[in-house]
Parts: sequence; structure tokens; C-alpha cells
Amino acid sequence: MTALSDHRTAIRPTMADVAAEAHVSVKTVSRVVNHEPGVRPDTAERVRAVIERLGFRRHDGARMMRQGRTFTIALVVEDLANPFYSQIGAAVEREARIRQHQLITASAEGSPTRERAVIEALINRRVDGIVVVPADESASSDAAVEASQTPIVYMDRPVRGTPRDTVLSDNHGGIRSAVEHLVAHGHRSIALFGDDPAFWTARQRREAFVATQQSLGLPGPPRVSMGPHSPASVRETLTLWTETSDPTTAVITGNNRITIALLLALRDLRRPLSLVGYDDFELADLVDPPVTVVHQDPAAMGQKAAQQLFARLLGDESPAQTVVMPTRLVVRGSGLRRSTTTR
Amino acid sequence: MTALSDHRTAIRPTMADVAAEAHVSVKTVSRVVNHEPGVRPDTAERVRAVIERLGFRRHDGARMMRQGRTFTIALVVEDLANPFYSQIGAAVEREARIRQHQLITASAEGSPTRERAVIEALINRRVDGIVVVPADESASSDAAVEASQTPIVYMDRPVRGTPRDTVLSDNHGGIRSAVEHLVAHGHRSIALFGDDPAFWTARQRREAFVATQQSLGLPGPPRVSMGPHSPASVRETLTLWTETSDPTTAVITGNNRITIALLLALRDLRRPLSLVGYDDFELADLVDPPVTVVHQDPAAMGQKAAQQLFARLLGDESPAQTVVMPTRLVVRGSGLRRSTTTR
Repeated sequence: MTALSDHRTAIRPTMADVAAEAHVSVKTVSRVVNHEPGVRPDTAERVRAVIERLGFRRHDGARMMRQGRTFTIALVVEDLANPFYSQIGAAVEREARIRQHQLITASAEGSPTRERAVIEALINRRVDGIVVVPADESASSDAAVEASQTPIVYMDRPVRGTPRDTVLSDNHGGIRSAVEHLVAHGHRSIALFGDDPAFWTARQRREAFVATQQSLGLPGPPRVSMGPHSPASVRETLTLWTETSDPTTAVITGNNRITIALLLALRDLRRPLSLVGYDDFELADLVDPPVTVVHQDPAAMGQKAAQQLFARLLGDESPAQTVVMPTRLVVRGSGLRRSTTTR
Repeated sequence: MTALSDHRTAIRPTMADVAAEAHVSVKTVSRVVNHEPGVRPDTAERVRAVIERLGFRRHDGARMMRQGRTFTIALVVEDLANPFYSQIGAAVEREARIRQHQLITASAEGSPTRERAVIEALINRRVDGIVVVPADESASSDAAVEASQTPIVYMDRPVRGTPRDTVLSDNHGGIRSAVEHLVAHGHRSIALFGDDPAFWTARQRREAFVATQQSLGLPGPPRVSMGPHSPASVRETLTLWTETSDPTTAVITGNNRITIALLLALRDLRRPLSLVGYDDFELADLVDPPVTVVHQDPAAMGQKAAQQLFARLLGDESPAQTVVMPTRLVVRGSGLRRSTTTR
């Protein structure tokens, strides 16, 4: 850190400091800080960058009271320790921070009851808006939530009832790309280890798997095992499916947790099965063979959901929209037929 | 979900419901809910479990105003997407939730300036207490923080100035166990890839590495490369150190990020180096060979820090204490001399 920046942090910067540094008027800074319209997006972005760099903060207390706003948003997910959710969390927190909002995070641990209690508590505490990865399709649609004016954006899974902004991932496209990749490499007997069918995404991926099997004319009834899974349960099922006259040669997993359970099961089994995992993971490159995955971009999904929420907080009253984010197949080698791979 | 639990969630449970279900008096439930003394720990735990199961919630607004409490705590870390911090986050959030508190999470991205701004904003917003993994030893000790009565617990790294509760990990013990393990397997030329020496933990681990080298009588000046690192920078340094007359045969990393950079570098180098990583990671078992690590328990550290914070919120005014949590060496194979390992 330079002497200059030390000096800057010692004296609390003013709106005038931000205006001078960003080459805009104080009124423009004020508009950005107060989330008022009339500032070009690139200018607003530049002002926000200067605000963050200088560490400018307004005095919030009185202003918040006056506006009835708390400048707090919340994120409700299943489990903050799961990398899929922690990447969403980091992205939503960043969007909140650059807009001078604070983020409350809460884990509902997959329980619709707990999720409802958490969301009600957040609404009672007057958060300005909530991003939710809902536990099920009906979880948050009870009367209290419906009655509140609190904007909610759903992520990853939709919720029935009053339409609300929703950011989804292209589950059908993702699974289809996985099946097609395996078929292109000569696989005909492919199995799916899906997540708990209580989850909408798990059912979507199962449907996509069955539909793609059929559209590609693959033989036999689709082999599908839905979760919850453990390495032991995966191992048992795989033993069954690989000891038939038509042995399974490739497996698709339903998410990052199941990929790990499957990799552990395969290590114990020592069977040369091919694999495409759903969700990318940091060490996919380092497993032998490197794991081909359907890459969802949780950070981009979280950013998109937060941006939709802030649009609502700025007064956007257009009809609720559903955004479907594309997935991408990252080919690393594990989808090849294992008899043709070298170690 | 059973019909019974559906029914339960439809009718908002009362304190009397909780009391009946937990086999205690309504007064006891009230004490637990209001964080008042006079309830045995195991009874309180049982009541909290019932509260959570039934989804009981009091009406917070007026009560919070009356008590001047917001029933919100905050966690400030470097990067919520890093698994070390997301595990801390999940643990702190759980401790908050079972005590009917909400958790605000914030990432300071390793910047002392940003951290100071974040903590000041949290204090201005009247959070009841804060758990901080500080960016540096002086980060939060400015006047505003000192002047506030807000309890703060530091984690992972200490802060100079007014003593505050601090939860640390046994960095010296962790590094010593790594060096001793490698020496026991015949290594004499061991290198450390540490983190950025701006971090207290990085310097602690470097000191421990040098001290252990010397106490074990290993030859030559210690080979230490401090971060920040990239796979490319690690590869360059390793090339130098393995092409001398006294080639490095084993490497210790300073944290989970560096372990990954090192594994990527080793894959490209294709040199048979042994390895002990600092911090466990989920796929350590699946890398070939499986990675031996110094296991810190971020969830246990987060739980401990949150528990210390809640003790302060309950009125504990004993002197600030520092807790050092033990580490554990998890032996998986990568520490063996690579010439003796089989693939």
C-alpha cells in the first residue's frame, strides 16, 4: 500500500472527493449513491469503482429511516459450505457491496419449513429484497410472503404461484450435451445418478436424460438412480449395472456432490467407467482421467439474480421474467471410452 | 413431508407448543428464546432443537427496539467462495440460527481498507457482534472500532491493540507435523511454498518451517518461496530447485489455494515430487497419489468463534481469551518418496 492510499483512508472521503476522482458532478455521485435514475450505466460503474476504491460511505442511519429502506438484501440457500452455493454467495455479496448494501445469508438445509421460517424472519426484519434458491416449488409461496411487498428473485429452481423473477440454468441443454458427448464417443449404455427427486432441478435433469436417450434411439429402458446417494449406494448400483449382459459403460451425475460420491465409488470399484459430471469443480483437471463436466456458472447466475433484484429495488415494475442461463460442456477426457484411454 | 408436519407449519406454533414438545415450562422456553441465564445447557439445546423443528418464531420488531439489540451478527472474511471461508461461514450461520440470530456476511477481499469500511458499516448498522478473519494485524483497530461497544471475535489471525477474543489454529504444530512426516519418509531437501507474507498465518508457517528444519538438522538454507503464487510461478521455482545438485524432493504448501496451484504445476512438470498440503480439501483422496494434508477444521474454528461471541452477548465480561485449535496430519500417501510409490 502506498503512502497516498494510507493518507486517503485516514481522512474520510466525501462525495466531492468521489466526484473529482471520477470526473463527474457531485449530483451524479449522489444519484449513484441513492440509486436514482439518470446516470449512464458506464458512468455509474465508474463512480461505483471510485466509491469502492476510496472507501466512501454515507451516513446511513437517518437516511434509511427516512426512506423506509434498510439497504440490506438477503440470500437463502441450502448449504453455504457447498461450493455451488458459496460461489453464488460471493457473487451476490459483491453485487450488494458495490451498491452499498449489506447481505444476510441463511442456509435452509433443504427444508421447506425452515426456508419459510427464514424468509418470514427476513421479511419481518425489513430486508429490502431476497434472492432464494428454493427448497421446493411451493416453499415460499405462503400467505405471509405473498402479502409482503418484498421483492424476491428465485434462483436455480422456480416456485409455483405468483410469478416472480427467476434465474434458471438450462438443465435440459446441459444433460443433452452430456449424453450426446458420450454417444459421440461410442457409448450406448449410459446411466444417470440424479439428485433427490424432491428437487425440481433433479427432475428436470432426469426428464432431459430420458428424452435424449429416446431421441437418440439408445437401446433399453433408461438406467436412472435418483438420490440421495452415498459412495456405498452408488457402488452397489454400479455393481448391478456393470455385471449384466449389457453393462453400463458411462455415467452422468446430477450435481457436484454426486460426482464426488461417484469418483469415490469408482476408486473402490476400480472399474473403467466413463463419466460426465454435472457442475464444474476446482480439481476436475487433477483427477485421473480429468473429469468432463457440464459447467453451470453459479457466479454468473448469482450476479444475474442480484442484478434483477436491484432493478426491482430501483422501481422496475415490468412483468416478472425468467432468465435461463446456458451451460457449457467442458471436455477433459473422462467421457472417452476407458478401454481407449491410456494411463 | 408427513401430513403432521404440514399441519404444524400451517398453524404458527406458540411458546406453549414448544414447552409441551420439549417437556419444559413456558418460562424455560422464554429464557432460552430471550438468552436469559438459568437454563441447563442440555435443556437449552433440547429447547432450541424443538424451536427449530417446529419453526417457532417470536415477534421481533418491538422487542429488538426495546432491548437495543438487532439479533444480527456479522462475519467478515476474505472471500466467501474459498472453501476455507465458506465452511467457516456455514458454521457461524448455524450457531446464529439456533440462537434465532441472522448473519450478515461480507468479503473484504484481503484489503485492510475495505475491511475497515465493512466493519464500520456493520457497527453503524448496529449488528450485535462481529466475527472477523482480519486482513492484517492492524486492520480493525482504528478509533471507530475501538470506541464501539460491539463485541468482536477475531479468527485465524490476531489483531494488535486492545485485546479481544481470538480463535487461532496451531500453525507451528501443523507445519512441524508436515516436516516431521516428510523427514520420517526419508526426505532431506524440503521446500515451502507459503502464502503472501502480508498474512500473519503465512509468516507463522514460514517461521515454523525454518525452525523445524533447523531443529531437525536438515542441510542447507531452507528453501522458501512466499506468495502470491500462480501455477506458472510455482513451476518456474520448482524447475530451479529440482535441477540443482541437491534437488528438492518434497514440498509443503501454505494453504489450499497453493496446494491446487502446486498440483497443477506438478502435472505440467511431470516430476515425482512428494507433497504435504496445508488445509484439507474434498478431493484430496482422488488425486493420484492421494494428498497428505495438515487438516485445520474451519467448521470447528467458526463454531468456536461464534460461541465466544455469543458468550459476550450473554454478558460474559471475563478477560479476552485466545484459543488455539489443534491441527491434524491426515496421511494419504503423497508424502512418501515418489521413487518408492507405485502407480
